Amino acid sequence: MPKTAVKPTGAKRGRPGYDQESVLDIAVQVFNKHGYDATSMGTLADNLGISKSAIYHHVPSKGDLLRLALDEALVPLEAIAEDERAQRGTAEERLEFILRSTIRVLIRRQAYVTLLLRLRGNTEIERNALERRRAVDRHVTHLVTQAQQEGTLRQDIDPRTTTRLLFGAINSMVEWYRPDGPVSAEQVEENAIAMMLDGLHTRNG
Amino acid sequence: MPKTAVKPTGAKRGRPGYDQESVLDIAVQVFNKHGYDATSMGTLADNLGISKSAIYHHVPSKGDLLRLALDEALVPLEAIAEDERAQRGTAEERLEFILRSTIRVLIRRQAYVTLLLRLRGNTEIERNALERRRAVDRHVTHLVTQAQQEGTLRQDIDPRTTTRLLFGAINSMVEWYRPDGPVSAEQVEENAIAMMLDGLHTRNG
Repeated sequence: MPKTAVKPTGAKRGRPGYDQESVLDIAVQVFNKHGYDATSMGTLADNLGISKSAIYHHVPSKGDLLRLALDEALVPLEAIAEDERAQRGTAEERLEFILRSTIRVLIRRQAYVTLLLRLRGNTEIERNALERRRAVDRHVTHLVTQAQQEGTLRQDIDPRTTTRLLFGAINSMVEWYRPDGPVSAEQVEENAIAMMLDGLHTRNG
Repeated sequence: MPKTAVKPTGAKRGRPGYDQESVLDIAVQVFNKHGYDATSMGTLADNLGISKSAIYHHVPSKGDLLRLALDEALVPLEAIAEDERAQRGTAEERLEFILRSTIRVLIRRQAYVTLLLRLRGNTEIERNALERRRAVDRHVTHLVTQAQQEGTLRQDIDPRTTTRLLFGAINSMVEWYRPDGPVSAEQVEENAIAMMLDGLHTRNG
């Protein structure tokens, strides 16, 4: 199906010397290009330039590839809340740490997070990943509520809606952020935090 | 392919009395469920409970259905900038009018905007629609720049990045807003505008 093969971008290149990381790296690009459902092991083999049986040497099934690829996004996203900086200070400080860290994971693992965000929940593996995303959402909603109680976040917002708007803005980055674009990762992070926490209006505007 | 047929939600129901609006209404639901590429005229016919030739009575091709469906989102979105309220007042006032109006179109035409936002640009019709979206983006980027010059929006943000973050937050609504949910359309609009323009922080927080 694909007209052009996706080039390996992982550390170890060359055939047949793929390691699992390189296989994952290419698989996630193919999934993002054609959609997970529409990608067969044959399509993956074509893109890797190896045989189907060589892929099975690395992973037992397409579902396992998906699960491993989703972990590349979910494990670092879930690790954010485990960081000590997400567990001390005011709710507002912890929220800002989580938002900034999420932006960094999105930029560092852009292809893997893209895969995660485009899931439709058609399989058990997908539904499990979506449930892990929802747990992260619930944690942020809780922090927004707590920060309202502490008086640092405004009272006239709904925590659940706000969490969705925050992740809407942040998650959109996977679709438009370009590492070689004119705006650096640091600038995007500052721009997003400034807009979301302090608003676009000048303070005396 | 579909296990359950999508029910018509348009004004005129019952078979064989579909009008073009009802056909579009169902087609867009099927496209959103299975993806445009994966939806055949046969699948559409199954969902409509009519024959393929009966669909061709309404529209000459699947591409025409897509074009008509995308117009249901794009025409009202493009009309916003033509409204006199988008053409008078300060840049900041025009920007707020555009953001609020966009949220209203998204909520009113949720299924059609969902279709628009999920396009991958694989066909000429899709690329044309994406170009029309980009024209709207450019207009908003221009307004952000102008509002910075007028001193109502902060200087330390990049207009292009900001436009993408604004639409990221707003466009995400098509994925999570529920007309029968606990938060009303008006509350979502106020919440989004409050966060984006004035920020989540309390002003003396």
